Amino acid sequence: MILTVTLNTALDITYRVRDLRTHATHRVTEVTERPGGKGLNVARVLAALGHEVTVTGFVGGATGRAVQDRLTHTPGVVDALVPVEGATRRTIAVADASGNTTQLNEPGPLVTPAEWSAFQEAYADLLRSASVVALCGSLPPGVPVGAYAGLVRTARTLSVPVLLDTSGEPLRRGVAARPDMVKPNTDELAELTGSHEPSRATRDARRRGAQAVVASLGPDGLLAHTPEGHWRATPPRRLRGNPTGAGDSAVAGLLSGLVDRLPWPDRLARAVALSAATVLTPVAGEFDRQAYEELVGQVAVTGEVTAA
Amino acid sequence: MILTVTLNTALDITYRVRDLRTHATHRVTEVTERPGGKGLNVARVLAALGHEVTVTGFVGGATGRAVQDRLTHTPGVVDALVPVEGATRRTIAVADASGNTTQLNEPGPLVTPAEWSAFQEAYADLLRSASVVALCGSLPPGVPVGAYAGLVRTARTLSVPVLLDTSGEPLRRGVAARPDMVKPNTDELAELTGSHEPSRATRDARRRGAQAVVASLGPDGLLAHTPEGHWRATPPRRLRGNPTGAGDSAVAGLLSGLVDRLPWPDRLARAVALSAATVLTPVAGEFDRQAYEELVGQVAVTGEVTAA
Repeated sequence: MILTVTLNTALDITYRVRDLRTHATHRVTEVTERPGGKGLNVARVLAALGHEVTVTGFVGGATGRAVQDRLTHTPGVVDALVPVEGATRRTIAVADASGNTTQLNEPGPLVTPAEWSAFQEAYADLLRSASVVALCGSLPPGVPVGAYAGLVRTARTLSVPVLLDTSGEPLRRGVAARPDMVKPNTDELAELTGSHEPSRATRDARRRGAQAVVASLGPDGLLAHTPEGHWRATPPRRLRGNPTGAGDSAVAGLLSGLVDRLPWPDRLARAVALSAATVLTPVAGEFDRQAYEELVGQVAVTGEVTAA
Repeated sequence: MILTVTLNTALDITYRVRDLRTHATHRVTEVTERPGGKGLNVARVLAALGHEVTVTGFVGGATGRAVQDRLTHTPGVVDALVPVEGATRRTIAVADASGNTTQLNEPGPLVTPAEWSAFQEAYADLLRSASVVALCGSLPPGVPVGAYAGLVRTARTLSVPVLLDTSGEPLRRGVAARPDMVKPNTDELAELTGSHEPSRATRDARRRGAQAVVASLGPDGLLAHTPEGHWRATPPRRLRGNPTGAGDSAVAGLLSGLVDRLPWPDRLARAVALSAATVLTPVAGEFDRQAYEELVGQVAVTGEVTAA
């Protein structure tokens, strides 16, 4: 199975209001809720593609129960979340008639040292039946900033390929532990390397320890530097829509292509097409399967293979 | 015991953010949660004053469980809430460094006809041991707009004094059923009567059916027209602070004074002092007991008794 780790799971809540104004009172006309946090989003896309996927990370409180209730109704996703005393965070996206969104993100539960130890044990057990693992998103309070570096090392020790998708200091430390893959966006890459030039920054991120770097260029697709070569994958046209979850769909595409043993150009095409099919769907984080199947053959991949 | 009814209970969530801007992403630095809805707020103040109080209304879903978990830890409040299939609403108050608050209110669960019938039965049973009942706040979707009128009639049939604190059409219909007391603010009173002149509007509200009308004038105190006379009660000075919950504390003061058989001027003094002591407390809906005890003797009550 594919294992995804979401240390800071979330109950993602979307509110629809007519017109959001600061310091006013608003009647919310529509409320939707779904399990959130990058690793859970990645898992949902993988399950929709037909992969066996297990999710782990932390979950707690009434919000955590709401996340788990909904996961139970997601076919193909196995829940191996680890309980904590604190409550899973909420994220609130307030969508107004302008089509724009205002986001409020809670910090997440305070994880105790005992809970962090319990997670590390559960994680090592799960890795024994995993073909690949993805470590996704922010760290909740209490989890050490070097957490992902440790989880990368555990995966490498057990010879499980590991993808890291985070930002800031957890990314910097995680990269130094030599993950098989990182998938930063251009802002995360610039924060890591100091360079705003994606090709230069991508090469620099490899020198810092990541074996393959797949940089997300937003609507312009993906740029990959790997031991086998370097490529750029571009969608057939600029797509308009809701970019929420597009990065998580790209991660799902990379993992799916890896377990299906596709060559890098095909993995990148899958990731770009899934990402584009997510942008085209109005519901955040869902993808349009028909659009995906049409787009996957239309992604332009250029680059070259490294001489052996 | 005192019975308070909150048909649209809430999980009141307060977020602290640095600076709220529309269409931006915010990290919430502090999250607080408490049971909400006017009747639950009134009950908390009554319990703090030493009264026996029972709360009823609807509760459901993960948010409802969170409300009930917290009620269990509120000494003196007995939980007689009626379960529904839908989820109790959330209200989100986003407080920023400017000291201002942006409010997002969910609509509440859709109550089915069977759930509404079950509530009416439970309510009639609870009234048999109630010395007074307060009907508080908005109606959740599915509850008929004439709901409060029916609940007022049931209380009158069972000779239990009934206070109504709501707004709009539910207030208009409820007033026509002749409740013992209504406590509108000036906006609610203007909407009911068409008059922005409080004294005229208060008299008009009595003609529409309310036996006593206690109008809340915000920082200027209360104006009461009753069968026994009319009075105005004014706090000793203009108080600055957080007005959230001040109206609910005034209701608690009126109920407390009624069950303690205080004459109207003393009931009004209690209500104004509790309201002022709530404004003085930074936490929404809590009151400063010492301030209350000092203020209660300083409220100026002027008016005259109706000739017998």
